Amino acid sequence: MSSTPSGGLFAGVFARGPVAGQVDDRAFLQALLDAEAALARASAAAGLFPAEAAEAIAARCHAGLFDADALGRRAAASGNPVVPLVRTLAAQVDGDAAEHVHQGATSQDILDTAAMLVARRALAPLLDDLAAAAAACARLADEHRGTVLAGRTLLQQATPTSFGLKAAGWLVGLDEARLRLDEVREQALAVQLGGAAGTLAAFGDDGLAVLANLAAELGLAEPTLPWHTVRLRPAALAGALGATAGVLAKVARDVALLAQTEVAEVAEAGGGGRGGSSTMPHKRNPVAAVAVTGCAARVPGLVATMLAAMPQEHERAAGAWHAEWETLTELLRLVGSAASWLRELLEGLRVDPARMRANLDASGGLPMAEAVTAALADGLGRRRARELVDQAAAP
Amino acid sequence: MSSTPSGGLFAGVFARGPVAGQVDDRAFLQALLDAEAALARASAAAGLFPAEAAEAIAARCHAGLFDADALGRRAAASGNPVVPLVRTLAAQVDGDAAEHVHQGATSQDILDTAAMLVARRALAPLLDDLAAAAAACARLADEHRGTVLAGRTLLQQATPTSFGLKAAGWLVGLDEARLRLDEVREQALAVQLGGAAGTLAAFGDDGLAVLANLAAELGLAEPTLPWHTVRLRPAALAGALGATAGVLAKVARDVALLAQTEVAEVAEAGGGGRGGSSTMPHKRNPVAAVAVTGCAARVPGLVATMLAAMPQEHERAAGAWHAEWETLTELLRLVGSAASWLRELLEGLRVDPARMRANLDASGGLPMAEAVTAALADGLGRRRARELVDQAAAP
Amino acid sequence: MSSTPSGGLFAGVFARGPVAGQVDDRAFLQALLDAEAALARASAAAGLFPAEAAEAIAARCHAGLFDADALGRRAAASGNPVVPLVRTLAAQVDGDAAEHVHQGATSQDILDTAAMLVARRALAPLLDDLAAAAAACARLADEHRGTVLAGRTLLQQATPTSFGLKAAGWLVGLDEARLRLDEVREQALAVQLGGAAGTLAAFGDDGLAVLANLAAELGLAEPTLPWHTVRLRPAALAGALGATAGVLAKVARDVALLAQTEVAEVAEAGGGGRGGSSTMPHKRNPVAAVAVTGCAARVPGLVATMLAAMPQEHERAAGAWHAEWETLTELLRLVGSAASWLRELLEGLRVDPARMRANLDASGGLPMAEAVTAALADGLGRRRARELVDQAAAP
Amino acid sequence: MSSTPSGGLFAGVFARGPVAGQVDDRAFLQALLDAEAALARASAAAGLFPAEAAEAIAARCHAGLFDADALGRRAAASGNPVVPLVRTLAAQVDGDAAEHVHQGATSQDILDTAAMLVARRALAPLLDDLAAAAAACARLADEHRGTVLAGRTLLQQATPTSFGLKAAGWLVGLDEARLRLDEVREQALAVQLGGAAGTLAAFGDDGLAVLANLAAELGLAEPTLPWHTVRLRPAALAGALGATAGVLAKVARDVALLAQTEVAEVAEAGGGGRGGSSTMPHKRNPVAAVAVTGCAARVPGLVATMLAAMPQEHERAAGAWHAEWETLTELLRLVGSAASWLRELLEGLRVDPARMRANLDASGGLPMAEAVTAALADGLGRRRARELVDQAAAP
Repeated sequence: MSSTPSGGLFAGVFARGPVAGQVDDRAFLQALLDAEAALARASAAAGLFPAEAAEAIAARCHAGLFDADALGRRAAASGNPVVPLVRTLAAQVDGDAAEHVHQGATSQDILDTAAMLVARRALAPLLDDLAAAAAACARLADEHRGTVLAGRTLLQQATPTSFGLKAAGWLVGLDEARLRLDEVREQALAVQLGGAAGTLAAFGDDGLAVLANLAAELGLAEPTLPWHTVRLRPAALAGALGATAGVLAKVARDVALLAQTEVAEVAEAGGGGRGGSSTMPHKRNPVAAVAVTGCAARVPGLVATMLAAMPQEHERAAGAWHAEWETLTELLRLVGSAASWLRELLEGLRVDPARMRANLDASGGLPMAEAVTAALADGLGRRRARELVDQAAAP
Repeated sequence: MSSTPSGGLFAGVFARGPVAGQVDDRAFLQALLDAEAALARASAAAGLFPAEAAEAIAARCHAGLFDADALGRRAAASGNPVVPLVRTLAAQVDGDAAEHVHQGATSQDILDTAAMLVARRALAPLLDDLAAAAAACARLADEHRGTVLAGRTLLQQATPTSFGLKAAGWLVGLDEARLRLDEVREQALAVQLGGAAGTLAAFGDDGLAVLANLAAELGLAEPTLPWHTVRLRPAALAGALGATAGVLAKVARDVALLAQTEVAEVAEAGGGGRGGSSTMPHKRNPVAAVAVTGCAARVPGLVATMLAAMPQEHERAAGAWHAEWETLTELLRLVGSAASWLRELLEGLRVDPARMRANLDASGGLPMAEAVTAALADGLGRRRARELVDQAAAP
Repeated sequence: MSSTPSGGLFAGVFARGPVAGQVDDRAFLQALLDAEAALARASAAAGLFPAEAAEAIAARCHAGLFDADALGRRAAASGNPVVPLVRTLAAQVDGDAAEHVHQGATSQDILDTAAMLVARRALAPLLDDLAAAAAACARLADEHRGTVLAGRTLLQQATPTSFGLKAAGWLVGLDEARLRLDEVREQALAVQLGGAAGTLAAFGDDGLAVLANLAAELGLAEPTLPWHTVRLRPAALAGALGATAGVLAKVARDVALLAQTEVAEVAEAGGGGRGGSSTMPHKRNPVAAVAVTGCAARVPGLVATMLAAMPQEHERAAGAWHAEWETLTELLRLVGSAASWLRELLEGLRVDPARMRANLDASGGLPMAEAVTAALADGLGRRRARELVDQAAAP
Repeated sequence: MSSTPSGGLFAGVFARGPVAGQVDDRAFLQALLDAEAALARASAAAGLFPAEAAEAIAARCHAGLFDADALGRRAAASGNPVVPLVRTLAAQVDGDAAEHVHQGATSQDILDTAAMLVARRALAPLLDDLAAAAAACARLADEHRGTVLAGRTLLQQATPTSFGLKAAGWLVGLDEARLRLDEVREQALAVQLGGAAGTLAAFGDDGLAVLANLAAELGLAEPTLPWHTVRLRPAALAGALGATAGVLAKVARDVALLAQTEVAEVAEAGGGGRGGSSTMPHKRNPVAAVAVTGCAARVPGLVATMLAAMPQEHERAAGAWHAEWETLTELLRLVGSAASWLRELLEGLRVDPARMRANLDASGGLPMAEAVTAALADGLGRRRARELVDQAAAP
């Protein structure tokens, strides 16, 4: 019996699209190994040992050569998987090069750097999906600039708006969320290097050179100081993912509401058995909107976990740091899944302008009350106009 | 590339002990199948179809006959794994019996019932670990009723207390948490049965009989009404797990603080490379306390997710229900892991009464200030006594 | 410029009903004073000092004699308001009795006991409102047992149900939430007494007697041990309030959805300008449902705060305890307000059975698809029946 | 009995410093009125009505002329305080100008704009306190670049570091948090204007001109589109405040740990009765560190509330928007209070270099184990060196 968490069974909903493959066990393991390989090269480039040793190490840094589950089990002794990973890696490297594996670094240097690599790699397809979803909104906004439907406030018809404007609102949200995530990717995702207590002491005078080399090697930012216990970087990523989830869920909520049987102004594309029910043959469920909502609903709690884990003790935290590991990959996985679902939803969304018009007409002109008031106000004054319209509009 | 979440790599920390195996994919899949088998038997017992058909169905309800990952992928079409599971199960059942697979039920009936089964099975070893941890505290309380150490408030030495009393405080916490969890197990974990819209309509007049049979079959409580969108049951479980995590983390926090280099009043048992560092040969890290803290720190956010998911629409929610699935197993896994770590920690805890005494003595009697004030108060009055002691105790 | 938080401006929404007055500053101050008075009486009853001294103290324990804002400002020096309160109280008590103010207790004894008193007093009207809301549901369930409407899953019409059953589901939720809250009131709300480090040392041999007297005096439970840093009691209260909020919000969500312009199956009572808009004369907003939703949406985060604050250090926490104070009153206030709103909503809810029927009819019989399938299955077998109905129901 | 929340009693801890006065009821009320005044001027400048009318309106927009509590009570009817505020304001404005009060706007335009104004005003002193705290860290970093103390990981002494480097780590955290908050202030805080359904319809052709004027008038950003239900702006603010709280709490945690009786490497300044206990004359509690921790611990849950409230329906949310109001001011108040406390703490922090050295020496050279290993490695190879040091360092 495996001790890994459930997940495959629900992967169709919560691990959809290209991000999931960037944040799974194998991807994280590869990122840990990439961090070790890059550290070796960065150290060799700084003159700490021969380049050949670095290459000998890097040559063994392939996830396929390791067993994530076994490492995970052995992680129990030290409290993190880097300790057994380093031991296993060193055992696989021949000759003197083995002595330079992980040289000067502490477990957290490798694990934090790997987490940032994982995030960087996961953000690429996530940003793509967000951009595609935004593009779909742009098309809807353009196509439907003249499609009139009821603006709704507090779930009541208010005044008319256009479906194009509604889609434009979604577009702005998706675009701004994407821009912020991109900013976080460029600025917040940094390598970690400090050694045991963050002093770079084990690198002698070459610490800053190794740090710069490491950042260049991995395409991550170079921090001013080690951030072992100053967790603004993961917090910024979590915050941006949280805001993105909120926007994705806003669009999905609107779609689910517009797709209600009694409203029926939009429908998901369906096809391929999509939206079917185990018992009700006629059902065409808005599965994508539901899935986005389900993914996104799990995000705020995880962001809170990341923020609550920020007060980390001294030079390495006694638990709060550990709480970040799976939480961060979970955040990436869920927001990635939600973005993938929403992209698909928006690219296939069916809009029914006639029904939009009919729903508005069914309210017998009441949504024009504000406009009528304004028109009457020119002659009667706003107060008197409002009184008259109030009387006419009384239920 | 698998689309399952990371997990194995960190399983040593977050999936330790016997609960993890009760909440993984295979366990959840088996619970879904157990729910289908029990439904078939419950329906047959109510006379809806022959017992042979039920047994023919039950005979195929073994997780080993199914592929959780494949079901997960196919779940995307309908938004939950029950739809493809039912289809696959029916295809494996011979003859007319296949027609009775899932008869009268809705996906949520099966998924909710399975989640409750998973919880029930996970709680057994969790309650065991809590009881064992409490027993270890009881031993410590008994052994150390006369072991004096500094009581500490706001991380400052306050007045003396005994380590036995400290352990007794932990004991009461662990015990009360366990009792509440046990109560939740008995009362809150119920079967779900309602059919498409919660009316039991598809069972004709036999709905209530099938419900009663189903509850008896699975050893779960029988609810007054379907609770498809009234989510007090999962919320009660989440709340009790959250409170348990808080108690576990309280004990771990105390241990980590007492184990500080400068305090050194307790130590974890160590052995087998436990507590080693990748860079610092002398380190003996309080790995278990750290792991408990790391597990528990992830719990409050997940409880918030469960509570935030409670307002579920009409007869089945459009996303909020889905948000519960992995969150609930995650909660069980993390609290189970924390309990397993803490049990081990407490069973091996090394206590240093001499150091406790020495740390107290190092404060030069200041922690006795309150007692001195009280003694002086008999003759001088409390106000004057406090003034004198304030002067004497001034730094 | 006052330093109190905003609140009055939004009190109409978030501090509605009778609970708000039980959790405001004055009520908390009175509870602190009640705790001091009861401590004095409990100590006198245990023979620690004359009953006259206790009565002299109790005679000054009236909130009206104190300035909460001034105490709050002075609380900055010690980090809690009990220190200046005790000083002020002692200064107001004449003669030797002044020496017995707060005797033997620590600030946390008083503050925790007061918080429990506040909770007990706030729960009375909250439980009343929940009971009244449940009673209103019972009436609706009874009246509308034959009122047919569409059952809706994932916001799509599924199969028919009755409004009576829907209301019965709400009833069960409200009732179970109320029962759990009542249980928490009886079992979890306990006095706190331990003195500086939880040892009751300053009470000599009379500590347990004072504790028992104090519990009897205040009508709160008597704990096995001080719970200064084992926070199951506030956590249980928070968890039960969180679950209650979830149920309240579920009912409100249903009402808001049923009240949508396009659905219009229920309406809030309105009257007295209720539900008006600043710009749209025709709007009749479901204000109560919106307010319940707004109150309840703030609860899960606050519960997470309470749970995250549970790992409290040693004998008194360095910050986590403080985080509970306002969070707990906020939880009571918000859930109290939500309950008050929902009671009013349900007591005045207007139900439109004709519209319910019409909405169902508008779906052209599709919600009967499951029933038709079942009927056909008798002759054709379930699989073939489902195929035929699938074809007939295809959009 | 007032229905406002408790607060004054705890204001010394949670409403300390200059931010509190910017987020209380009066400040929010003034911001609402400032928004109405600016709207009038912006509309007049766009030619919608005479400037005299705008000035007549603006002349009445003073909080002192209104009763926040009364408005709050009347807010219950419409669900927000803007409706009664507009009515009261219009009643106070003479002649035709009264007709132009709130013209074209919806309640949310005013409330959102006011919330952004409140945030802008609160951020000024908050950024000041952060800058001052960072400056204090810079001084400590400079002064103590040569002050050696134990680096501590998992609460165990690891390898030596310097207190200057530790303070530099705090400095970087405070500075980066401040820069992000400043960025949010400049970019995310925007006016809101859209009218009933976000179309600006009631402004005729002048909507965009009024919007631009309004932004200029108030010194807030001009949004591309109304953001009534696309809540990235409040989410960005909440996220940045959450990250700031995490950094503040990290520093406070370090201070509280360093100030422990057994460590005693730093102390808070004390003075003026600061840090006293109600029962223990000798106690000098780290009150500021405790208060920072208490404030910050309440933040992650509130951020989660803001994020969970993001999926807002259609053109105005039915509850989720309401959940933001008090949550946002609470976030500002708590982070403002924490920053004020930490500034004071850092400006007065007493550092004891001799004790730092002594604590390190007490570990008998073990923290130099890594360095010794490295030194030996030159001759013996890293593996053999580690083996030897492991033996020597074994407990």
